[in-house]
Amino acid sequence: VSRSDGDGLAQLIQDLHEADVGALIEALEPDDRPRFILLLGSRFDFTALTEVDDAVREAVLAELPQDAIVEGVAELPIDDAVYILEDLDSDEKDEILDRLPSPERVALQRSLDFPEESAGRRMQTDFVAVPPFWGVDQTQRYLRETADLPEAFSELFVVDPRYRLVGSVPLDKLLRASRNTRIGELASEDRHRVRATDDQEDVARLLQRYNMLSVPVVDDGDRLVGVMTVDDVVDVIQDEADEDLKALGGVRGEEELSDSVWYITRSRFSWLFVNLVTAFVAASVLDVFKGQLQQMVALAVLAPIVASQGGNAATQTMTVAVRALATRELTRSNALRVVWREVRVGMLNGFGFAVLTGAIASLWFDSIGLGLVIGCAMVINMLAGALGGILIPLVLDRYRADPAVSSGVFVTTVTDVVGFFAFLGIATLWFGLS
Amino acid sequence: VSRSDGDGLAQLIQDLHEADVGALIEALEPDDRPRFILLLGSRFDFTALTEVDDAVREAVLAELPQDAIVEGVAELPIDDAVYILEDLDSDEKDEILDRLPSPERVALQRSLDFPEESAGRRMQTDFVAVPPFWGVDQTQRYLRETADLPEAFSELFVVDPRYRLVGSVPLDKLLRASRNTRIGELASEDRHRVRATDDQEDVARLLQRYNMLSVPVVDDGDRLVGVMTVDDVVDVIQDEADEDLKALGGVRGEEELSDSVWYITRSRFSWLFVNLVTAFVAASVLDVFKGQLQQMVALAVLAPIVASQGGNAATQTMTVAVRALATRELTRSNALRVVWREVRVGMLNGFGFAVLTGAIASLWFDSIGLGLVIGCAMVINMLAGALGGILIPLVLDRYRADPAVSSGVFVTTVTDVVGFFAFLGIATLWFGLS
Repeated sequence: VSRSDGDGLAQLIQDLHEADVGALIEALEPDDRPRFILLLGSRFDFTALTEVDDAVREAVLAELPQDAIVEGVAELPIDDAVYILEDLDSDEKDEILDRLPSPERVALQRSLDFPEESAGRRMQTDFVAVPPFWGVDQTQRYLRETADLPEAFSELFVVDPRYRLVGSVPLDKLLRASRNTRIGELASEDRHRVRATDDQEDVARLLQRYNMLSVPVVDDGDRLVGVMTVDDVVDVIQDEADEDLKALGGVRGEEELSDSVWYITRSRFSWLFVNLVTAFVAASVLDVFKGQLQQMVALAVLAPIVASQGGNAATQTMTVAVRALATRELTRSNALRVVWREVRVGMLNGFGFAVLTGAIASLWFDSIGLGLVIGCAMVINMLAGALGGILIPLVLDRYRADPAVSSGVFVTTVTDVVGFFAFLGIATLWFGLS
Repeated sequence: VSRSDGDGLAQLIQDLHEADVGALIEALEPDDRPRFILLLGSRFDFTALTEVDDAVREAVLAELPQDAIVEGVAELPIDDAVYILEDLDSDEKDEILDRLPSPERVALQRSLDFPEESAGRRMQTDFVAVPPFWGVDQTQRYLRETADLPEAFSELFVVDPRYRLVGSVPLDKLLRASRNTRIGELASEDRHRVRATDDQEDVARLLQRYNMLSVPVVDDGDRLVGVMTVDDVVDVIQDEADEDLKALGGVRGEEELSDSVWYITRSRFSWLFVNLVTAFVAASVLDVFKGQLQQMVALAVLAPIVASQGGNAATQTMTVAVRALATRELTRSNALRVVWREVRVGMLNGFGFAVLTGAIASLWFDSIGLGLVIGCAMVINMLAGALGGILIPLVLDRYRADPAVSSGVFVTTVTDVVGFFAFLGIATLWFGLS
């Protein structure tokens, strides 16, 4: 498709939703992507670029001539334009901003001045605001006769003369009201509003918690500056869960399928490197007991089982803890209760697996002593795993580190070291090795 | 609060959102929860019960007298009522249904007849539908004068005489249209509609992908039966990511902070049990080489390092693969490309860690041979990890098993077994052990 020039493409694409155009761009060979956009020229809707992976977008923007970007961005609603521009380096961003027509430039600049990942960056700045003293009839006439209303909206905002937010009126309420009602009477004092500087995750949680479709965004003077809708935050909620998931798996949250091999290799290397260090720490514990290992090689065969069971129990606890912290279900007020619960779960499963593993080990190596030793070590290590799995995320969270990113390393270090020490230490005493 | 009876409570609560009342219920002692609801009587809004953890809801419902449940459920919109009733056992569900007034009963029964987790279960059945030949004015009059419209709506649906969906009209479009336009002209042929039997996850992905606020739900005859809005699916999207995350951590997706110790212990036991089996498989590989381990105890000290590095590399790959499969970013069409990418990442990191680990091992045990051996084993195992990490989820997904739940076990088995075999096998050959 992309080899032959032109209008054919435009026709193929005209019925597609921007999300599908985005998917199409991702499916193209990297070199064809900017060519595809240039071929379409002004017929290309830059919204499609908000639908592709970050890495693809950055690569495409780097290849496109600045003219094309300026033209494309000028057509976009502010929130989409911000989304495309915010990752550019600041020189290029400034150049593009300078070349935009003045109203867009001012609005964009204002959004970009808000902190990254704030409501101010994500909000739609196109909304309908009316004064409280208007009647329903007058408002309906206004809506019918004004040409440059936002593309789609589901509520009106009521503001006072200084543009401070008074309340909001969902459109269905407007339609149901009798004609001479005043807008001010219809406006429900919004129970919720957010500040433009609020973190987008907090806004997402708020909308999710109260099942709201949208929430008004105000500045420090309580003046209405924008609106955030659920569809803007669905991605925020998913991204957040995704980041936790990837972080627990030892992968950077931003890693995407379209990243280059070299980039991925480097970004995963650092996590593996940290793990290598902890693996050597665990190995050095084994080294301490090398005399015993040599005297009784069954210990070398069984030691990894103790470590791995503890590690897995700890990972279970840690997974639940990390997620509960992220969704604010686990807080200081119930932390103690949860810790105590995990300790009991760890003990119960510890005893269960002590019996199981002990029995198998006794039969395998024909030594009841060995079974008893591995059983004791199992209880100790699974308890250590439960404690580590809950306490480490809590402590990291307390000190404002992201528990999803770093808990895993600490936790497996604990269970490896405790597991080896407990098993080999008890074995040394029991069998009188040295 | 809950000890003293009555009206005080109602007053305290009346300004709270149902989500906050839900949080309050969870914060109460288990015994106080049903008492709290009974004290409030008809002043208690059962919607709050849709906001609490499943375990809490089930426990509370089991304690409440059936009268209270029937009364409470009768007040609810259908989707909330379904949510509360669907987890009850079928006898109790039927009894409650029988005692509900007939219109609610029929609507509820119809929703409950759809499969679990389908759009039919989650949709709102309250919507406004109008015929295409109505004018804007007539429609507005209808909205103004009809008393029992849904509580909140943001669009009208246009249906033909047989109630088949023709299209939809967002309210802002209605308000902007001139008075004598026909509704049929305003209706945009919806590009998207979903069937009541569709899986809620697919509906969620659709809404998310196309940034839609709502989508009409039709039955097999294309007749309009309900509507699903984004706020209904935000939780679906988050739950899905959460389930993957928990499954990867070896925890059941449904596990919640309020589950009992005994329930959690049992549900985690099964995963740990599977892991124990794989740990014994890995140990039996060590057992094969026990002669060599005894001759050269450094091998016992270092073997877990090879296994753990491979396991972690595999976990990284697997995490990305599982998530990409869930979000449908990884499909048959790009699978080969992604596998090849992972192989190259595995090779590169394999070589990197081969050099690092080899150097450290050489110095530690003062043996260049040992460094070479562990280096080779590292390359082999990290490559195996990369392959296992991507191929196992792909195969599981192909055969319709959930890759998040079972990939982990297979993957670590692969890296443990390959790691031990490669390291001890090469060592046996290199040092001529037996």
